[in-house]
Amino acid sequence: TPESAERTAVPGVATGLAVTGMGGEVLFVEASAGDGEPQLTLTGQLGEVMKESARIALTYVRAHAVQLGITDPTVLDRHIHVHVPAGAVPKDGPSAGVTMVTALVSMATGRPVRADVGMTGEVTLNGRVLPIGGVKQKLLAAQQAGLRTVFVPIRNEPDLDDVPAEIRDRLEVVPSIDVADLVAAALAPAEAAQRAA
Amino acid sequence: TPESAERTAVPGVATGLAVTGMGGEVLFVEASAGDGEPQLTLTGQLGEVMKESARIALTYVRAHAVQLGITDPTVLDRHIHVHVPAGAVPKDGPSAGVTMVTALVSMATGRPVRADVGMTGEVTLNGRVLPIGGVKQKLLAAQQAGLRTVFVPIRNEPDLDDVPAEIRDRLEVVPSIDVADLVAAALAPAEAAQRAA
Amino acid sequence: TPESAERTAVPGVATGLAVTGMGGEVLFVEASAGDGEPQLTLTGQLGEVMKESARIALTYVRAHAVQLGITDPTVLDRHIHVHVPAGAVPKDGPSAGVTMVTALVSMATGRPVRADVGMTGEVTLNGRVLPIGGVKQKLLAAQQAGLRTVFVPIRNEPDLDDVPAEIRDRLEVVPSIDVADLVAAALAPAEAAQRAA
Amino acid sequence: TPESAERTAVPGVATGLAVTGMGGEVLFVEASAGDGEPQLTLTGQLGEVMKESARIALTYVRAHAVQLGITDPTVLDRHIHVHVPAGAVPKDGPSAGVTMVTALVSMATGRPVRADVGMTGEVTLNGRVLPIGGVKQKLLAAQQAGLRTVFVPIRNEPDLDDVPAEIRDRLEVVPSIDVADLVAAALAPAEAAQRAA
Amino acid sequence: TPESAERTAVPGVATGLAVTGMGGEVLFVEASAGDGEPQLTLTGQLGEVMKESARIALTYVRAHAVQLGITDPTVLDRHIHVHVPAGAVPKDGPSAGVTMVTALVSMATGRPVRADVGMTGEVTLNGRVLPIGGVKQKLLAAQQAGLRTVFVPIRNEPDLDDVPAEIRDRLEVVPSIDVADLVAAALAPAEAAQRAA
Amino acid sequence: TPESAERTAVPGVATGLAVTGMGGEVLFVEASAGDGEPQLTLTGQLGEVMKESARIALTYVRAHAVQLGITDPTVLDRHIHVHVPAGAVPKDGPSAGVTMVTALVSMATGRPVRADVGMTGEVTLNGRVLPIGGVKQKLLAAQQAGLRTVFVPIRNEPDLDDVPAEIRDRLEVVPSIDVADLVAAALAPAEAAQRAA
Ligand SMILES: [Ca+2]
Ligand SMILES: [Ca+2]
Ligand SMILES: [Ca+2]
Ligand SMILES: [Ca+2]
Ligand SMILES: [Ca+2]
Ligand SMILES: [Ca+2]
Ligand SMILES: [Ca+2]
Ligand SMILES: [Ca+2]
Ligand SMILES: [Ca+2]
Ligand SMILES: [Ca+2]
Ligand SMILES: [Ca+2]
Ligand SMILES: [Ca+2]
Repeated sequence: TPESAERTAVPGVATGLAVTGMGGEVLFVEASAGDGEPQLTLTGQLGEVMKESARIALTYVRAHAVQLGITDPTVLDRHIHVHVPAGAVPKDGPSAGVTMVTALVSMATGRPVRADVGMTGEVTLNGRVLPIGGVKQKLLAAQQAGLRTVFVPIRNEPDLDDVPAEIRDRLEVVPSIDVADLVAAALAPAEAAQRAA
Repeated sequence: TPESAERTAVPGVATGLAVTGMGGEVLFVEASAGDGEPQLTLTGQLGEVMKESARIALTYVRAHAVQLGITDPTVLDRHIHVHVPAGAVPKDGPSAGVTMVTALVSMATGRPVRADVGMTGEVTLNGRVLPIGGVKQKLLAAQQAGLRTVFVPIRNEPDLDDVPAEIRDRLEVVPSIDVADLVAAALAPAEAAQRAA
Repeated sequence: TPESAERTAVPGVATGLAVTGMGGEVLFVEASAGDGEPQLTLTGQLGEVMKESARIALTYVRAHAVQLGITDPTVLDRHIHVHVPAGAVPKDGPSAGVTMVTALVSMATGRPVRADVGMTGEVTLNGRVLPIGGVKQKLLAAQQAGLRTVFVPIRNEPDLDDVPAEIRDRLEVVPSIDVADLVAAALAPAEAAQRAA
Repeated sequence: TPESAERTAVPGVATGLAVTGMGGEVLFVEASAGDGEPQLTLTGQLGEVMKESARIALTYVRAHAVQLGITDPTVLDRHIHVHVPAGAVPKDGPSAGVTMVTALVSMATGRPVRADVGMTGEVTLNGRVLPIGGVKQKLLAAQQAGLRTVFVPIRNEPDLDDVPAEIRDRLEVVPSIDVADLVAAALAPAEAAQRAA
Repeated sequence: TPESAERTAVPGVATGLAVTGMGGEVLFVEASAGDGEPQLTLTGQLGEVMKESARIALTYVRAHAVQLGITDPTVLDRHIHVHVPAGAVPKDGPSAGVTMVTALVSMATGRPVRADVGMTGEVTLNGRVLPIGGVKQKLLAAQQAGLRTVFVPIRNEPDLDDVPAEIRDRLEVVPSIDVADLVAAALAPAEAAQRAA
Repeated sequence: TPESAERTAVPGVATGLAVTGMGGEVLFVEASAGDGEPQLTLTGQLGEVMKESARIALTYVRAHAVQLGITDPTVLDRHIHVHVPAGAVPKDGPSAGVTMVTALVSMATGRPVRADVGMTGEVTLNGRVLPIGGVKQKLLAAQQAGLRTVFVPIRNEPDLDDVPAEIRDRLEVVPSIDVADLVAAALAPAEAAQRAA
């Protein structure tokens, strides 16, 4: 998967799955922390629901920093910028919640996200993963993009029956109920991060 | 009630009852306090009236912290985030007022809300519980969700006549006039909270 | 008057009179002061003119704190929240001005408003009471709600001719020109407040 | 002139002249300075142009405080509130500029405005008085309200020909070019202010 | 030129040229610096493009203060107010850029603008003068207003052919490419400013 | 290339390529840092997507200051103003991303951009260059403006086939994938900057 491997080579980038009028698609959530007024800047032509997803993700990560392995939580009080390319494509919906949490934790720990992992799922303020739509199209897009492991909300398991067998066979579909478990599985091991640092 | 039990297992989550075009429904109000600029962040596609309910709830809880058993009221001056999943469903109306008060007190005391409790009711700035609509549908939804105790505004008692006997028989309906009493009855005992801590 | 007695039992609540498409109505203005960023929060689906009334009332009370018997004026520099239930009913117009002034002074002095008192009138920045509309319907609503004393702008005295004699006989209508005099008459005596404290 | 005499009995109130669909009208500009965040609060359903007039007036008064006889200019850095009753009547246009300047200087010096004085005129950032419309209707309204002296922009002198002789005879019309001169003539003498204090 | 002479007699005012549906017109840009929150207040019913011109002008003047002869650049960090009378006339377009720069430098240096000078031209963030429209109407208005010297963008030189000879003969048209040169030529000599102080 | 040479003679200006209804066009992005509230001011009638491009560019440059050769990164925490003349022409789209990054780095290092260089490309938060539209028209505009070197996203290489040979022959087209490499090649050598200082 050249695209996702290049994109997620640096910490702070996670691979999500979206559905558009054109079918399923892979998208990348980028998170960055820097100087400047402490605030959350959101770019990528995000709709209201998707902006709320980013605020929910940030509150969740701040409140669960220790559990998520973030040793310096003050990074979350800096100026946080979350961007979702491509810049001119409007995007909306809550299903990027898990991707936003993962990108923020990757940024805050310095551990990159595994290159072959994609994910979809709404997140609550307590990290619970809620079901989303478009499972079939998303898995198809994941497979075409060369991903190997896809995290899907546990309550979407019934939708997997609609996914063609040849797609399912090439993907490891991991049902998610707690985003903290998803993050632990999706990030590259801490040692890898240290070597990269 | 598996859903409400899982959702309210952590402090800061209370179970409300709403009415949509599809009938009655159970919703969960999540409250979280964290670092960052002291302000109230509201997510879940809340309409103007429901946003005002959250501001009223926060002012009420701040002004009555001692009465409500909040030993460290400074938690209420942190960055407060109130979220009502599901993230893409628009929600409005004042009837989640008691649920917001309960979620905030649960968050501030660390005492979880009892798993089998649902509630509905507008709240004034002084904690008085005002009547709401849709009592019949809300009780039906509560019973279907496996709840046992439902708090309803005292001025809605006449509406209980319209509720089928088989629903009423399976629920303890508690008339509310002061939200402080409601909160005291809805939260798990303080000892339980201490054991969980 | 059970409703207004219960509502105004605590300091910070004053009973106003409004006119809606449904006729006259009693409304309650609630004021609360608390921690948090010093600002004025307004809830109750208030229209632009009614929001301006609240800002005018607060400026007037701040500038005349000594005259109004407020011994600790710093309470007016805290986070002030003014709410007008019911939360889902849109409200507008300048005629709640005197009610807002009274609620704020009651809040700042700790003296509750007399339970049998209603009021209506626009207020200027200097506390002058300007005439309003709907006198007939408002007095009818006041009488039906069991109020005994109603403050009405002095320039509305001609409108009293239209009020049926059986209504006027049961109400003491007090013409107002200076809101400071209205407040002095509407608040319960200071001793009562001290006993309650 | 009972109305204007009562309204302008306290410092901070100046009598202006406006034109509405109903003809000329007298309006009162009220200015107040108090605690709270230093900012300019504008109420009275003011349109964009009239709000800008207030900002221009405040900048002019701050920059010319010494010339205008303001011995404590720090009052202009407090929370300034400018209100134009009646609260529900929309108002717009630049012609209240001189009235706003006069109300602010009256507020800042403690000198009340003379009770029999009315005024109209746009003001520039340097205090120059620019012409306005509706001179005839405004003078008629001034005379009916019992005013004696009316300040009118010098460039409106040609419009005076249209004013009926019986109106002009009862008014002293003072042409204005510099608002500082207008203010000096419109305020009551400083001694009067001291006696009142 | 009585009007422009009176208007520009004080520092901080520069004479611009605009085009409206009514033809060319002279306008005056007024700049003032005072106490209060450091910010840029813009009045005169300015459209979005003209507001941006003011922000560009301020950034340019701040960045080139030394080159422009501003000995105390801290004046530019105060509360800056730029007003363009008349207050009720909507204005837009980028061609007042040079006028805004000139008014700001005049304000900051205390040197008044020469009374017989008018100007038009867009300004970039680096002070480059870009071409504008309506040269013919603007020069006609300048001549009618009694101006003698008019600054026009160098890239508008071809438009001068359309200007009637009798207009051009009465004006000195100065082509501009760098607004710093324009400012140096448009301000009265520093000695004059000192004598006036 | 007289125009781009003059425009880019000072640090902080970079030459971009845009497509309008009129075909390809050269545009200049100007960046300036100054005193005043730390914030990002954007002018030039920029649409939402283009404004987001500027925010993305600033976050990227702040996070990669060392790699980009910025020895004093505090300049990026000052008041940053990015302007894109001409002021009255609406502009939008993400393809000025690389130009904004280049202008900001030029401003922060004091190294001017090479006069014969143009560029186009969206930028992600990690500096990756994404493809854009209108390659053919942009190269035509670049050649007509006398540019010699044009940076184009590597993923736009297939579009080069559509560009007429006589255009391609006169331009060096450099495919870009990492904006840091683009910046290093587009800025004049550091010695030149020092000589100019
Ligand atoms: Ca979605
Ligand atoms: Ca599989
Ligand atoms: Ca509801
Ligand atoms: Ca029962
Ligand atoms: Ca009303
Ligand atoms: Ca009576
Ligand atoms: Ca007017
Ligand atoms: Ca006369
Ligand atoms: Ca123009
Ligand atoms: Ca000539
Ligand atoms: Ca573009
Ligand atoms: Ca070539």
